[in-house]
Amino acid sequence: MEKTKGNNVFDDGKKQKAGRVVEKPTNPMVTPLLNDLYQFTMAYAYWKAGKQSERSVFDLYFRKNPFGGEYTIFAGLEECIKFLANFTLTDQEIDFVRHSLPGCEEAFCDYLRGLDCSDIEVYAISEGSVVFPKVPLLRIEGPVAVVQLLETPFLNLINYASLVATNAARHRFVAGKSKLLLEFGARRAQGPDGAISASKYCYLGGFDATSNVAAGKLFGIPLRGTHSHAFVSSFMSLDEIVDKALRSSDGKTTCEDFVSLVQTCLSKIQSSALSGIFSETNKSELAAFTSYALAFPSAFLALVDTYDVMKSGIPNFCAVALALNELGYKAVGIRLDSGDLAYLSTEARKFFCGVERELNVSDFGKMIITASNDLNEETVDALNKQGHEVDAFGIGTNLVTCYSQAALGCVFKLVEINKQPRIKLSEDVTKVSIPCKKRTYRLFGKEGYPLVDIMTGENEPPPKVGERLLCRHPFNESKRAYVVPQRVEELLKCYWRGNAGEAREELEPLKEIRSRCIKQLENMRPDHMRRLNPTPYKVSVSAELYDFIHNLWLNEAPVGELH
Amino acid sequence: MEKTKGNNVFDDGKKQKAGRVVEKPTNPMVTPLLNDLYQFTMAYAYWKAGKQSERSVFDLYFRKNPFGGEYTIFAGLEECIKFLANFTLTDQEIDFVRHSLPGCEEAFCDYLRGLDCSDIEVYAISEGSVVFPKVPLLRIEGPVAVVQLLETPFLNLINYASLVATNAARHRFVAGKSKLLLEFGARRAQGPDGAISASKYCYLGGFDATSNVAAGKLFGIPLRGTHSHAFVSSFMSLDEIVDKALRSSDGKTTCEDFVSLVQTCLSKIQSSALSGIFSETNKSELAAFTSYALAFPSAFLALVDTYDVMKSGIPNFCAVALALNELGYKAVGIRLDSGDLAYLSTEARKFFCGVERELNVSDFGKMIITASNDLNEETVDALNKQGHEVDAFGIGTNLVTCYSQAALGCVFKLVEINKQPRIKLSEDVTKVSIPCKKRTYRLFGKEGYPLVDIMTGENEPPPKVGERLLCRHPFNESKRAYVVPQRVEELLKCYWRGNAGEAREELEPLKEIRSRCIKQLENMRPDHMRRLNPTPYKVSVSAELYDFIHNLWLNEAPVGELH
Repeated sequence: MEKTKGNNVFDDGKKQKAGRVVEKPTNPMVTPLLNDLYQFTMAYAYWKAGKQSERSVFDLYFRKNPFGGEYTIFAGLEECIKFLANFTLTDQEIDFVRHSLPGCEEAFCDYLRGLDCSDIEVYAISEGSVVFPKVPLLRIEGPVAVVQLLETPFLNLINYASLVATNAARHRFVAGKSKLLLEFGARRAQGPDGAISASKYCYLGGFDATSNVAAGKLFGIPLRGTHSHAFVSSFMSLDEIVDKALRSSDGKTTCEDFVSLVQTCLSKIQSSALSGIFSETNKSELAAFTSYALAFPSAFLALVDTYDVMKSGIPNFCAVALALNELGYKAVGIRLDSGDLAYLSTEARKFFCGVERELNVSDFGKMIITASNDLNEETVDALNKQGHEVDAFGIGTNLVTCYSQAALGCVFKLVEINKQPRIKLSEDVTKVSIPCKKRTYRLFGKEGYPLVDIMTGENEPPPKVGERLLCRHPFNESKRAYVVPQRVEELLKCYWRGNAGEAREELEPLKEIRSRCIKQLENMRPDHMRRLNPTPYKVSVSAELYDFIHNLWLNEAPVGELH
Repeated sequence: MEKTKGNNVFDDGKKQKAGRVVEKPTNPMVTPLLNDLYQFTMAYAYWKAGKQSERSVFDLYFRKNPFGGEYTIFAGLEECIKFLANFTLTDQEIDFVRHSLPGCEEAFCDYLRGLDCSDIEVYAISEGSVVFPKVPLLRIEGPVAVVQLLETPFLNLINYASLVATNAARHRFVAGKSKLLLEFGARRAQGPDGAISASKYCYLGGFDATSNVAAGKLFGIPLRGTHSHAFVSSFMSLDEIVDKALRSSDGKTTCEDFVSLVQTCLSKIQSSALSGIFSETNKSELAAFTSYALAFPSAFLALVDTYDVMKSGIPNFCAVALALNELGYKAVGIRLDSGDLAYLSTEARKFFCGVERELNVSDFGKMIITASNDLNEETVDALNKQGHEVDAFGIGTNLVTCYSQAALGCVFKLVEINKQPRIKLSEDVTKVSIPCKKRTYRLFGKEGYPLVDIMTGENEPPPKVGERLLCRHPFNESKRAYVVPQRVEELLKCYWRGNAGEAREELEPLKEIRSRCIKQLENMRPDHMRRLNPTPYKVSVSAELYDFIHNLWLNEAPVGELH
């Protein structure tokens, strides 16, 4: 299919590629057709009216932090940039669009054929930053018809990414720094991409690893996983194990009958002071554990709740772990997937410490205890309050589907066209948009914490360190405060300037984005972060912008009549 | 990269392809790596133990209907079949797996290299069916290591598909048959695939159209979309409109100045009996509407709430609609995206009827009123109770993210291995699995409604029409009932039999699946369907299976000791 260039207004030599090649979006389904039809009907109407190239500025922002909190993690930027760097419609796609628009003229297809993002500029907050309502996450500037075609894909790529990264950060906050957090959501996520995006953005938000192999491969996220209940149930008895030999960790000796060694170890436990807790353990479970240890002697972690945690799973695990120990291996630990996790983890720890003490095996008490089973912020918090011995949490459904709030409401609003500021009014004041092409800054206080974000008009002088500045609530006249910033950070940086690829920020590796996220979260004033009644972080406008907004508002709003 | 066949136990001539070619999954990210790592660690452990080819049977089912209802729509089957028909690991993927498994032997890679689903059988309920807890949606049979590798992808492909299809069906139920239901969720969905899957499965569940262009192209779903607030705000005045000519609908005449015609029509309305409601309308809005009508004269539908619905949007819309009418076009209608939708739709309808009456324009009162803005089951129900004039609902966030319950909990449980039945016990009786390779039937009563689903052992004789049959609750001894079915339908049909491709059900077009869904929903007894306190549909086992389960249970469960 040959690409013919038609009467494309951008086809003026500006189309040469920027110096850097940007990879395609992770998901090949992210194309310009991942769009609401109305972006194309509008593009057609703009084109028919000759308005398609009018220079417009749109802000992408959200109005309310999710999960009842007072902060959000911004994520999804990299995918947006990859999308627009590769933005082009194929002939087949154009044909489909044409048939979807009633009465569409052929010349519009020529226009679409020539479209790309070489005339677009994107300013954005760095991915992984802590962000707040009303402050633009992205400012997108360019021909109005093209920018509109970015709206739906950008919102799609940012809404869920930011939501699930925030959810991950909140789980990290409640679990504490020292715990291992594992994302286990692939099976319950909202579709295949829900799974892969979830793994990426949960890692960004502070998780340590995922069970999702594809995400591990795509993004270099550490992987975790051992076995399920089905593996345990698939065994009937120890007689099934045919190849019983296991080489010692140092490779010097071979135990010809590891199964007997395991049974000897189980007898040792049974005849020790620990025997009171259990009598006979389940032998198919013991066979499964033994078999799993033969496959992964250096990474033995067993799911211990298929039959009964304390009467069967834990003693069986310890028998196998002791046998491994005799061959110089160190078992990793256990996973609990049901029951009272506070109680069971504490009892399991006692048992491990008992083995260390009674059978004189050093470090046996330090076995890693992993908990899973429908965990979320609340259950982890409840576990903390009860006291527990869990070292690692495997969290799935509630994390990846953002069960407690399944959507973030980012919007994409026109704030300027042809240098004219535009405002979107609403009877609901929280829905009024902040007009004008703006700059945004984060002001830091003496203790190093961020104090307030401030938006100014494009041409206002930036806030200065040590200089007193009036910060006003954008819509509430009486809310304002003077601030003397100790540090000023401009938030919006250029991530895309179609015609000058070199003059923009580099896309960063996921690990760096993750580090930014963790560092910024640690640097927040604690009262913004607490789970119960957190203090809202302040978002403001300059005095000049405030006056401008309110004059425009008065001009645009209809005057009511009371009868 | 050459594919070398190693010591693959399946490499015995059975691998010739089935007669039919099945397309790949819609999303290219659906590969065998879209999997939990533990499926691969288990595959390795099975392989090490020489158990990898043991014949196993797994059931995929859910335990509880979503959204507080008593029914679920089964969806996602087609994608599962496409996945397994194309199941193969590339050398690069195998390499990644090997590096993810500590101590993985090279020979295991040869095993993975030879893997496909030629030895797998899948029996499933037809996609789009109304389904109930505990009854297997799929029964998957084959070598245990291979079946385990299907677990995570199958759950991922079915959980969200079934959840969102059910959500769509519930929205259809509350909106009623006569309303147009439009899915508008792309921007708030959980990732790109969340958007595309949502569009597909909302259509399956009874929606009429989507805004998502990619979904329209991929699945042939009707598309809908007009313009946004930004389009309205992008206009400043009528002077902007340069090309003012509009050909009449029959092509015979041309109105050289459509803008003036619109203004004349607005004056007509202003000087009619309808004038009391408004004085001056917003002229940039009028310019936007006029411009949009010039682009789509035969499909004019306007968003009327950018400034003020009754004072500006509706009179402006009517002026443009009247002007179109004079040229032989019929405007489609309006969209309301904020405010009190019951009140505004009623007032808008009155105004349209007023125009029809006062200005003598036939059918003007029948203008289509579309409502959007954070709608869900509850708000549509509330609108119904208040009374409204909405003809079409555009539903986004709450629909596609399944906001009121963001996950369905399908599970995948081993029920038989090497012809031995397996049961998964749990202290929570709702989590105990129903063992054995089973058959399942739906029994219908005299009035044609489904009465009960029954599971039997594989070799039991099927229920017979007119013959009395005891149906038992699987876990509650005292719950049982005699049923004399008037019709018996076997639920599980063969959708995949690797070695005999011809002997299986065809994958159906989406429209047929949708029709099945709509028809089955209509055929349910009304008390199962109502939103408040619906009657649970009964799910049962045969007397023989009941006894079998409970004997197995007693055998496997540890006997407690009280001290």
